[in-house]
Amino acid sequence: MTVDLHNYVATVENFPEEGVSFRDLSPLMGNGVAYRQTIDAIANFAKDLKIDLIAGPESRGFIVGSPLAYALNIGFVPARKGGKLPRAAVSASYSLEYGGENVLEIHKDAIKPGQRVLIVDDLLATGGTINATREIIAELGGVVAGVAFIIELKDLQGREKIMRAGDVPFLSLMTY
Amino acid sequence: MTVDLHNYVATVENFPEEGVSFRDLSPLMGNGVAYRQTIDAIANFAKDLKIDLIAGPESRGFIVGSPLAYALNIGFVPARKGGKLPRAAVSASYSLEYGGENVLEIHKDAIKPGQRVLIVDDLLATGGTINATREIIAELGGVVAGVAFIIELKDLQGREKIMRAGDVPFLSLMTY
Repeated sequence: MTVDLHNYVATVENFPEEGVSFRDLSPLMGNGVAYRQTIDAIANFAKDLKIDLIAGPESRGFIVGSPLAYALNIGFVPARKGGKLPRAAVSASYSLEYGGENVLEIHKDAIKPGQRVLIVDDLLATGGTINATREIIAELGGVVAGVAFIIELKDLQGREKIMRAGDVPFLSLMTY
Repeated sequence: MTVDLHNYVATVENFPEEGVSFRDLSPLMGNGVAYRQTIDAIANFAKDLKIDLIAGPESRGFIVGSPLAYALNIGFVPARKGGKLPRAAVSASYSLEYGGENVLEIHKDAIKPGQRVLIVDDLLATGGTINATREIIAELGGVVAGVAFIIELKDLQGREKIMRAGDVPFLSLMTY
């Protein structure tokens, strides 16, 4: 049985600010069939990319990346918000979609030189989070072997921003 | 092959404050074998509990709960920090282990009355997060069918605190 994943997206108008249509994926994550179909679709994309590790930015990227790591029998590396990791880490900053700056961090020993990493998140907006994650992975000597999202917000041109930082295999399951 | 999960715990002294030994599970999550063994052990515990949904508190609970939901073919419900959910939610507050208060929230439509929920987190400290999550699930009419952790910090007596709020099937894979 295949379901239409669009039916599991809740659109919330004017959140987090006036004029923004927020695409909320909690209904998809809360439904066993839709959630499994989503993760399996990304796992299928990952199959030919020879992935060693999955990385996902805090926090919704964890809900996409960690089941994917489990499905592929590999490890998961969280890109955490600044100041949360207890051991030596590499960080990169990025601009937030609605103003301000944030920092992401990955433990130094989380990725070994040459390891191939797939970056995943629930939703691609401007691409700032993803490029910051790429920057950290590159600094650790890892190879970004692909990027995958459940939703891509076309108008924000995140995909173009990602490709400007270097071509990479790309997947988005739904576009808005 | 079975590995000793203790070998995948990094102990960090004096984090987040003087005198505290922080048990960091990132090595476990970053290793495909240890990570799968962990999730499968919790899935095995869940097998006889007739679970409809997995709930996990932000953010490390996501890295335990979402692969478990995937493994069991059911949905995942995040208990998010205050102010992050875009739609109507129920909240509960709890005291932080190192001082202060925090709020957790779950979307009102995430759990239907009578649904059986397993709460999971990476580490059980004082149990405040778990009891707040239980409170929300009860308010939504759900049934907390079990609680599971990768690590239990015995001295902090979180298990006792959880049981005082009502007996519930309990699993911890490692104790310190």
